[in-house]
Amino acid sequence: MSTNSDQSAKGNVNKQVPKKQTNKQKQTKKVEAAIEGAAQIGIEVRKEADFSTWYQQVLTRSEMLDYYDVSGCYIIRPLAYNIWQEVQNYFDAAIKELGVEDTYFPMFVSQRVLEKEKAHIEGFAPEVAWVTKAGSSDLEEPIAIRPTSETVMYPYFAKWIRSHRDLPLKLNQWCNVVRWEFKNPQPFLRTREFLWQEGHTAHFSKEEADTEVLQILELYRQVYEDLLAVPVIRGIKSEKEKFAGGLYTTTIEGFIPTTGRGIQAATSHCLGQNFSKMFDITIEDPNAPAASNAAKMHVIVIPLGLTAKTTEEERKKVENKVNEVVGELKSIGVRAKADLRDNYTPGYKFNHWELRGVPLRLEIGPRDLTNQQTLSVRRDNGVKEPIPLVDLKTRVPKMLDLIQKEMFERAKKVYDEHVKIVLKWEDFVPVLDNKNFVLTPWCEEEKCEDAIKERSARTNTEQEPQDEKAPSMGAKSLCIPFDQPKEPALVPGETKCVNCGQDAKRYGLFGRSY
Amino acid sequence: MSTNSDQSAKGNVNKQVPKKQTNKQKQTKKVEAAIEGAAQIGIEVRKEADFSTWYQQVLTRSEMLDYYDVSGCYIIRPLAYNIWQEVQNYFDAAIKELGVEDTYFPMFVSQRVLEKEKAHIEGFAPEVAWVTKAGSSDLEEPIAIRPTSETVMYPYFAKWIRSHRDLPLKLNQWCNVVRWEFKNPQPFLRTREFLWQEGHTAHFSKEEADTEVLQILELYRQVYEDLLAVPVIRGIKSEKEKFAGGLYTTTIEGFIPTTGRGIQAATSHCLGQNFSKMFDITIEDPNAPAASNAAKMHVIVIPLGLTAKTTEEERKKVENKVNEVVGELKSIGVRAKADLRDNYTPGYKFNHWELRGVPLRLEIGPRDLTNQQTLSVRRDNGVKEPIPLVDLKTRVPKMLDLIQKEMFERAKKVYDEHVKIVLKWEDFVPVLDNKNFVLTPWCEEEKCEDAIKERSARTNTEQEPQDEKAPSMGAKSLCIPFDQPKEPALVPGETKCVNCGQDAKRYGLFGRSY
Repeated sequence: MSTNSDQSAKGNVNKQVPKKQTNKQKQTKKVEAAIEGAAQIGIEVRKEADFSTWYQQVLTRSEMLDYYDVSGCYIIRPLAYNIWQEVQNYFDAAIKELGVEDTYFPMFVSQRVLEKEKAHIEGFAPEVAWVTKAGSSDLEEPIAIRPTSETVMYPYFAKWIRSHRDLPLKLNQWCNVVRWEFKNPQPFLRTREFLWQEGHTAHFSKEEADTEVLQILELYRQVYEDLLAVPVIRGIKSEKEKFAGGLYTTTIEGFIPTTGRGIQAATSHCLGQNFSKMFDITIEDPNAPAASNAAKMHVIVIPLGLTAKTTEEERKKVENKVNEVVGELKSIGVRAKADLRDNYTPGYKFNHWELRGVPLRLEIGPRDLTNQQTLSVRRDNGVKEPIPLVDLKTRVPKMLDLIQKEMFERAKKVYDEHVKIVLKWEDFVPVLDNKNFVLTPWCEEEKCEDAIKERSARTNTEQEPQDEKAPSMGAKSLCIPFDQPKEPALVPGETKCVNCGQDAKRYGLFGRSY
Repeated sequence: MSTNSDQSAKGNVNKQVPKKQTNKQKQTKKVEAAIEGAAQIGIEVRKEADFSTWYQQVLTRSEMLDYYDVSGCYIIRPLAYNIWQEVQNYFDAAIKELGVEDTYFPMFVSQRVLEKEKAHIEGFAPEVAWVTKAGSSDLEEPIAIRPTSETVMYPYFAKWIRSHRDLPLKLNQWCNVVRWEFKNPQPFLRTREFLWQEGHTAHFSKEEADTEVLQILELYRQVYEDLLAVPVIRGIKSEKEKFAGGLYTTTIEGFIPTTGRGIQAATSHCLGQNFSKMFDITIEDPNAPAASNAAKMHVIVIPLGLTAKTTEEERKKVENKVNEVVGELKSIGVRAKADLRDNYTPGYKFNHWELRGVPLRLEIGPRDLTNQQTLSVRRDNGVKEPIPLVDLKTRVPKMLDLIQKEMFERAKKVYDEHVKIVLKWEDFVPVLDNKNFVLTPWCEEEKCEDAIKERSARTNTEQEPQDEKAPSMGAKSLCIPFDQPKEPALVPGETKCVNCGQDAKRYGLFGRSY
C-alpha cells in the first residue's frame, strides 16, 4: 500500500535572455547570470548542455555524494546527510504532534509472510534482495530484505488492535529499504538501498483516515516548499496511477525544468475504511546544492585583503573579528563558520563554499574593520551589500529568510511557467515537447489516459538532450490538482476532454516523468 | 576494529533483609519492598527466581518489544525506540560539538572488499549474511550485509585524505548492522540485526587520537550514567581482550546484579598513529524499564475519586484540572500525559503506567480540587507526597531530577558493593561465585589471564539459576580500571599478582560476563 518515492526534486532556475532588453530585463539578466555563475563553480559543463554530467559533477564535487563499488549504491556524505537529518527533525517533530509514534521493525521478512499479500508484493517481487547464506552455511529458507514494510508490520497491527480503544494506531519508522533495480541507477533518484520514512496508521472511521491523509500530505508539502524551497503541485492520482489496492492516493509532484520532467515527490494513501493507511516519502537530497533553511551552514565568513605586506598584528585583528562575527551569529542560532585557512586565496574559498551551497558569505578585510562593517554576498543571485557590524544579528537572519523566500519564489515561478493550460489536442504534444506540463480538461477515464500516453509518445527524439537515456515516453497523468484553474473555468457538460471529446470532469495534470 | 557491543545493562536493585532490623533498616526495607513491588507489576515471576522469564515478561508486557517470525529479530516498539532516539539526540549533539560529521555508507559490501582485511574480518566471517539473489535472478557474485563498516569506509578514507590538511577526518553513522548469530538470541542483547552508532576518525598525531578516544569514552559514560542512570566502570582492556589490530581499547563495563555478570557497554579504540580509530556502541535499550531523563513520558496524571455518585459537573471539573496540570507541565518541557480513559479503574491505570516505566504519577480527585493540590507518587520507591498546585512547575522538575539521581545512586551502590577487592587466590572463586566482580592485583601477563580464567571456571553449577543456559565460565579480565583502589594501595615491587605471585602492575577487574 505504500508507494516507492525514492526520488527527489532538483530545483533549478531557467535562463532565457531576450534579444532586446529593457532596463528591468537587464537587471534580471544580471541576476540570472550571477545565478548561472554560482551554479557553474567548479563544474565543467553547462546544465543545459549535458544534464547528466552536470548532475554528477555537482554531487561529487560539492562532496554531497561519492560513488561506491557496489552498483546502485552510493555514499551519502555529510553535506547531503545533513539535509536528510534536517528533514527528519522537521517531519518527526510534526508527526509526533499528531500522535504518531516512532518504531523499528526488522528489515528481514520471511518468504511466507512476504508473499502473503500476493497482489501487493507482485510489483516488488523482481526487485527483492534475498539472503540465502550466513557465513558458509546455506539458510534453511531464503530471507528477504524489506522493499517496504506492509507485510512486515500488518500482522502485528492485527495482533495489537483488539478493540476500537486501540485506535487510532499511528506508527512510523525511519529506515533503509532495498529494491534491487536493474534499470540504470541514478544517485538519489534510483538507488538499490535508500533511506526513507514510512508511516502506517489505522483508524476507526474513514473521516478520520481522510483527515490524516491530508494532514500528512500537507507536511510533505511543507518539507519541500517551506524547508527546502522546492515548489510542488498537490493533487490526487488517477484511478490508474493510484496505489493498487488503496482507496485513493494523494501526491505532491515536483518538476525538473532542465529536462521538463515530473518527479513524484511524496505520496499519501488512503486504504479504506476501518483499516490502515500509509504515507511514504524519500527525500534523500531534495534541493541540490543550495537550500537555506535546511543548509548545513548558513554563513561562511572569510577574511580578505591580507597580503604579504600585512603586519602580523593587522592579520590577527582581522581574524579575531572574523571569529567574533561567527560567535555572534552562532549565539542567535545561525549556523556560521570561519574559513581561516592560510594556504588558500579568498577566491578559492569563495568557490569552495559556493559549490557547497552556503547561502550567504561575509567578507571582512582591514578596511572593513575601519568602517565597522562587513560585505555580504548572496549565493543565490550574487548581490553584494555592506552590513554595519552592529546590525549583524538583525540583518543576517532577515537576509537568510529573504534568500529562502526568493529561491522558492523563483523556482515556483519557473514551475508555474511550465504548467500550460491546453484546450485542444493539436497543442498537447508541442507544449509537452517544449518541456512543459500540460493542464487539460479530462474525462478521467483510464482508456483515455492510455490513449493520451500513446498519442504523446515522442517521435522526434532530437529535442532530447544527449545525456537523457530514457526512452521517448508518452505523458502520464501526474495528478488531478486540488487547485483547479479558475480561468478558463471548467463548465460541466460543456467543457470537453482534450483527447476523447467526452464531457470533462476536471483539469488533469499530464507530463513526462521520472 | 570495532567491537560488537549489541548489549545493554539492566539496572536493578538488590534486596537483602537482615533478620534484626533497626529503624533505618525498616525504612530501607519499606523502600526496597516498594521498589520490588513496582518491578513486579503485571509480571508473574520474581526476577531472582527466573531471570529469563522475568526479562521476557518485562519487555513484552511493557510493550517495549515484540517477538518476530524471523529468528533473532525483534520489533522495537515505541516505548523502547524512544529511548534509542533520546540516546541518539544526546550523543549526536555531543559529537557534533567535537566536529564529528554524520554520514551514511551503503549496507552492502562486495566480497572482494569485505575480505581485503583478512585479520579483521576473520572474527566476523561466520556471521556475515550474504545476498545471492535478487528477484528470481542469481547475482553474479554474492554481496555481504555489513557486520560493521571498517571495510566499507576505509577505502574512501584513503581517497579523501590527501594531506594533513584533510585531518582530522571524523565521521559517524547511525545505522543497522547484521551478524547472523547462531547462538541463542536474546532481545536487545544478542540480535541478528541491531541498531548502533559507529564513529571512525583519523588524526595526524597519536596525542590527538588519544584525546579523542577518551573524549568519546566519556560521552559513552555520560549516556549510561547521566542519561540512563546506569553505573559503569571505565578502564582499559587487557592486551588479550583489546580489539585485534588496534593499539589499545578503552571500555565501559556494566553489571547485572541478578546474575552477577558483566556486560560490555561500549568501547572506544585507538588504532595507532597516523591512522584512523573507531568508536562503537549499541544501546538498544539500556535501563529497562524505568529511566527518568530518557523516559518517553515523565509524568502521568490520573483522575480519581470519581464514582457512580459523582455528578457530571464534578467529573468535568476534575478532568479539566487534570488537563490543565498536563498543559502546565508540558509548557516547561516536562513530558506529561493525562489518562482520562473511563473504562479503566485508577488501580488498573497505576499498574499500566508503572509497567511502562513512567517515573512520576500525579493523582487528582475532587478533594484535591478543594485543597488545590495533587498527590505525587514516585515509581522508583513508592513514596507519596502532596504538591500544592501552585508549586507544580518548580516541584515536579526537582522531583524528576531527584528520582534520576537516586536511581543512579542506588544502582551505583549495588554495583560498588559487588566489586570486591581480593588479595589472595583462595578468596577469588568464592567471591566470584557470590555474583561479584573481583578487583585484584595483577601482573597483566596474558598467560596469567588465561590461568585465572581456567582456575575460576565454575565446578559447582547448582548456584546458577535454572534459566541461565550459559556454560559455567571462568572470569575474564574486563578492564584495568582508570580509577585504581587507593586502599590497599598497590605498592610496585611489593604487591604480588593474585594468581602467579609475580609483581603486580595494577589492579585488574575480573568477572563472568555476557
